[in-house]
Amino acid sequence: MNKTIRKGWEIVRFEGDRPSVEDEFIATEFPLTVLLNGHEFATMVCSPTHLEDLLIGFLASEGIIRFYDEITSLSIDEENGFAHVEINKALEFAQTDHSKRFIGSCCGKSRQFYFKSDVKTAKTITSRLTISVHQCYSLMDQLQQQSKQFQKTGGVHNAALSTADNLLTIRTDIGRHNALDKVYGDILKNRIPLKDKVIVFSGRISSEVLLKVSKIGVGIILSKSAPTDLALKLADDLGITAIGFIRNDKMNIYTHPERIFETI
Amino acid sequence: MNKTIRKGWEIVRFEGDRPSVEDEFIATEFPLTVLLNGHEFATMVCSPTHLEDLLIGFLASEGIIRFYDEITSLSIDEENGFAHVEINKALEFAQTDHSKRFIGSCCGKSRQFYFKSDVKTAKTITSRLTISVHQCYSLMDQLQQQSKQFQKTGGVHNAALSTADNLLTIRTDIGRHNALDKVYGDILKNRIPLKDKVIVFSGRISSEVLLKVSKIGVGIILSKSAPTDLALKLADDLGITAIGFIRNDKMNIYTHPERIFETI
Repeated sequence: MNKTIRKGWEIVRFEGDRPSVEDEFIATEFPLTVLLNGHEFATMVCSPTHLEDLLIGFLASEGIIRFYDEITSLSIDEENGFAHVEINKALEFAQTDHSKRFIGSCCGKSRQFYFKSDVKTAKTITSRLTISVHQCYSLMDQLQQQSKQFQKTGGVHNAALSTADNLLTIRTDIGRHNALDKVYGDILKNRIPLKDKVIVFSGRISSEVLLKVSKIGVGIILSKSAPTDLALKLADDLGITAIGFIRNDKMNIYTHPERIFETI
Repeated sequence: MNKTIRKGWEIVRFEGDRPSVEDEFIATEFPLTVLLNGHEFATMVCSPTHLEDLLIGFLASEGIIRFYDEITSLSIDEENGFAHVEINKALEFAQTDHSKRFIGSCCGKSRQFYFKSDVKTAKTITSRLTISVHQCYSLMDQLQQQSKQFQKTGGVHNAALSTADNLLTIRTDIGRHNALDKVYGDILKNRIPLKDKVIVFSGRISSEVLLKVSKIGVGIILSKSAPTDLALKLADDLGITAIGFIRNDKMNIYTHPERIFETI
């Protein structure tokens, strides 16, 4: 059973003037409340797959944990939508305060913006991996092909960890950030080395997405969609190669093109 | 000047093997921190247009205000990205606690999910407005036409308040929810009557979008994109007609089809 999809919602479909009544596949939206060391920490809405990966990646993204073994217990009550997570340290006040804004001028003259938790966890990427233009096209094509099973509902995003040649881990969610967090969780759980890896992503490259890529520690992000200006300033500062609008055999390299070469 | 777009980011564009260096338009992503009665309330990232509408709509969506005149002062320091808002009442603890989850079984046997602030503000819609299938097609076409100026960057969403025949207020943002909040803010500021109005929207109908439509008080949402199952359960319960995948002369009516008729 594919839990990302609910079957059998009755709709009225119109084509021009002609109506028909049909059973439709709809993307599932699942609310999950996270209790961290017994305290309510967050409620996320997500696709109910790979929830353990999602929780691990989410806590790492938020700067609560850095390694998988900081989690001493993790249980998910899927029926009621609750996750109980215990970590091996007390939560500092600053960590419950994880949405506070921080503005500095730490990276040059342009105005910079990070959340406090990002300042602790964002890191400059020094990866020396290079990949070819055709490998970029091919990886996005692989993501599209492998996500076809989800396309019947529309409205889900896919993220993958990949080598220069092949996708390794693909995760799907109605939320762009959740899809990436699920990949991040899998990386931490399995201690996957990242020097030779890239992220392949169906969604837009916003500042939040870019910061997540930086925290994960990958130097190249390939996206089907557009970036924002703030994401590009961060990518420039943090040493990340951001490539967008990869469609068939076209793409835009926005930052750090030195990692991309033209022929095989 | 169109502040939603930054001009002149230098990119390397590839078409097949051929690179070219070009200046590209990029969607602006602007962080805005809201200080409410002197206390930091939230930081949102948005497109820096119609910020007053955004703030009004956001505070109403969060259940902090119900009417525009509850705001006694509103000033925006656009250069530094801060908004100072004063309202004519003290914030209750429950209002600062606006992300807490609430689960009830208030609307039938299916499992229900709302945030606390939604329970206070979501309302069942009893609108008797009906519109034709062709009016639905036409309104989505108008949204597409009028948003063409933004399409050069990709990655922005559009929301509009509309009569059955014409779009009235169109708002654009990199965030789906912000685009809707900007429309909501304009409605509250100008006390626009809603009995004969519909919402036309480029983005996906998630539970959060659906709840926003309910709070705004409009009975019909037209979307270019897919809905989620949770949004449809809420639409069903709250009396909202949800129509998705409106593309040229096709569309899906997911809930409350009684408001849609076939011929003019």
